[in-house]
Amino acid sequence: MLLDAAREATAEAVGCRPDELSFTSSGTRAVHAGIAGALAGRRRVGRHLIVSSVEHSSVLHSAEVHTADGGAVTEVPVDRAGAVSARAYSDALRADTALACLQSANHEVGTEQPVAAVAEVCRAAGVPLLVDAAQSLGWGPVEGDWSLLAASAHKWGGPSGVGLLIVRKGVRFAPQGPVDERESGRAAGFENLPAIVAAAASLRAVRAEAAQEAVRLRELTERIRGRVPQLVPDVEVVGDPERRLPGIVTFSCLYVDGETLLHELDRAGFSVSSGSSCTSSTLTPSHVLRAMGVLSEGNVRVSLPFGATEEEVERFLDVLPGAVAGVREKLGAPTPTAVVREDELVVDALGKRCPIPVIELAKVIGDVPVGGTVRVLSDDEAARLDIPAWCEMREQEYMGEEPAEKGTAYLIRRLR
Amino acid sequence: MLLDAAREATAEAVGCRPDELSFTSSGTRAVHAGIAGALAGRRRVGRHLIVSSVEHSSVLHSAEVHTADGGAVTEVPVDRAGAVSARAYSDALRADTALACLQSANHEVGTEQPVAAVAEVCRAAGVPLLVDAAQSLGWGPVEGDWSLLAASAHKWGGPSGVGLLIVRKGVRFAPQGPVDERESGRAAGFENLPAIVAAAASLRAVRAEAAQEAVRLRELTERIRGRVPQLVPDVEVVGDPERRLPGIVTFSCLYVDGETLLHELDRAGFSVSSGSSCTSSTLTPSHVLRAMGVLSEGNVRVSLPFGATEEEVERFLDVLPGAVAGVREKLGAPTPTAVVREDELVVDALGKRCPIPVIELAKVIGDVPVGGTVRVLSDDEAARLDIPAWCEMREQEYMGEEPAEKGTAYLIRRLR
Repeated sequence: MLLDAAREATAEAVGCRPDELSFTSSGTRAVHAGIAGALAGRRRVGRHLIVSSVEHSSVLHSAEVHTADGGAVTEVPVDRAGAVSARAYSDALRADTALACLQSANHEVGTEQPVAAVAEVCRAAGVPLLVDAAQSLGWGPVEGDWSLLAASAHKWGGPSGVGLLIVRKGVRFAPQGPVDERESGRAAGFENLPAIVAAAASLRAVRAEAAQEAVRLRELTERIRGRVPQLVPDVEVVGDPERRLPGIVTFSCLYVDGETLLHELDRAGFSVSSGSSCTSSTLTPSHVLRAMGVLSEGNVRVSLPFGATEEEVERFLDVLPGAVAGVREKLGAPTPTAVVREDELVVDALGKRCPIPVIELAKVIGDVPVGGTVRVLSDDEAARLDIPAWCEMREQEYMGEEPAEKGTAYLIRRLR
Repeated sequence: MLLDAAREATAEAVGCRPDELSFTSSGTRAVHAGIAGALAGRRRVGRHLIVSSVEHSSVLHSAEVHTADGGAVTEVPVDRAGAVSARAYSDALRADTALACLQSANHEVGTEQPVAAVAEVCRAAGVPLLVDAAQSLGWGPVEGDWSLLAASAHKWGGPSGVGLLIVRKGVRFAPQGPVDERESGRAAGFENLPAIVAAAASLRAVRAEAAQEAVRLRELTERIRGRVPQLVPDVEVVGDPERRLPGIVTFSCLYVDGETLLHELDRAGFSVSSGSSCTSSTLTPSHVLRAMGVLSEGNVRVSLPFGATEEEVERFLDVLPGAVAGVREKLGAPTPTAVVREDELVVDALGKRCPIPVIELAKVIGDVPVGGTVRVLSDDEAARLDIPAWCEMREQEYMGEEPAEKGTAYLIRRLR
């Protein structure tokens, strides 16, 4: 009875029928099971999968497994704000497309995706659309005529250990792997009833205040978006300024080491995230920032929880400029190995990590005449993203890259 | 740090290294992931899987998927007490055996399996053994040289939503499906940290009292095992009388409808389980009782939790005889359609459900002379199990079954 009641309450909040909704053990499991089941259900149509390039890793991992298993995957690109277009999805559709996936909003930069428009394009082509609604479901139902939906309770402030998988009636779906009689055969294992009941209750509670809280948090993140570039020089605020989640704001600070900045902010009592390469175990920048083509160094993601106060935001804005300046000072003045060669300068930044290559580029750009070029040698993966982003911010010309004896040579022409 | 501490504490209780242990989202997930990963890891050796016939459904579902995928599965039979033998596992081993699975103890009848001996047989053949330790891990570590182990926190009194998968160093293991960087790539998704910490703490707490509590509960279940056949006529206590879990006792009552008996006991305040066909959604008797070849009708499983008192057990023993008698009286005297045919009687029990076919057989067995036969026509799946079991209890000869025009004819010779 508790399970039935939780299912009904959650289905109402999602905007689906109770018998279309299964509780899974996490949002990740919901995505994995949803994609695998939908692909298998339409295996006869074909094995082509469409995802955006800024999906959550659970979607991209599913796509990798599909590729390894012989399936085809198209990654739809995003614009500099992180959004896909319905047109790009339309272009990606093929006769053998089994499934398309799109997040409702991005988890790193907050940009909302045009789900309803993409759903319409997919519907017209007879292709089901799976929406990863993990970021947005607490704020409201996902609009548009989607076919499958995945979400995660802890993302809306509920407990860990509960995900949602919704499969609309009429969508072909063949669960993969061992199943049992639970959750329509879509999520095997003993139901985590206490957590499921808490998830349903918390979704209802969060939704009751969502409209009001969204306005309040949106004002606070708008304040961060506006003030940070005034307080801190050389900052790029990323993500769509209008079509965005209320509580997330992300920016990147030039010449800053993301990991050190996180430590500085942590010491001041702020727990933020970063998509900078130095904060990842693989030493590569976030795939989202990469897909957007924006600066990844000194990246900071601020997530304001329900109830975050104006005072906390003001204190963050007080602390940030000093923290960034401190990191920049520490990274200070590493002497670039610069050799003058007529009007071309070579900067050897081999073996140096983000943000050093960009710092060294910035230091020498004034040493070549306008029209001259700087060649930066680097073996740091982040340079591929950050040097073009710096050129865009500084209105210099990025001429491209070429293989070097060691690492890669990035060519920049001084325009001003 | 909390996750590391939980992992160390749990590994110590299991008797493994912390880096061999992954937390999964349930015991079922641990079994599914463990079997799939171990089979894939030894794919080059072959695709033969060995399981016992009384494994938990999560193991049997994995075996079904493996069969559907073209793999081979051998089900090792059990004796009437529900136990496998190391000899039977030895006989089942083949050159292409990739994996063997065995529970530490049975979840329905409490019988402990000879895990250490089976592990030795497997080890000698170079085949990894996966132990489903869900039933026993709260009582102590699993002995023997096993290779993989799965368990479930809610089974030892911990929270829902946490399973354990242990893969010993050196065991070939290839995780299947999408994975992420969490839990050694063996359990994708956001860690359910509060539940994991609670699981580790509860295992430690339960283990601290396990030895003492085991003695106490064993005395109480021994009392039920001994007293029930004295208090209730025509009862078969099932499961091994010695090698068994402390807190589980299971018996079957002839001529009783399991579902009705459960309702009667529930009204008296006792929540028990049953493996009778009438209590299952598929109307088939429990696969465990079937594999053991024991009576399945009127089946009752009593699980005594930690702290169960002598008074509660005595009250159960007070209530049980009246409850059984009441159900038997209700089922009362359905008139069998009996046609005398020389020294063979035909009982038409078509369309009637367990325990009616056995009741009708019992009513007419006295109507044929010793040496004569009764032919019971039945289309109830439980009859296939319960008629032979009744013959064994009543020392009559079960001659076998043959297809009838409708359903199946079961042939019984009167011996006394």
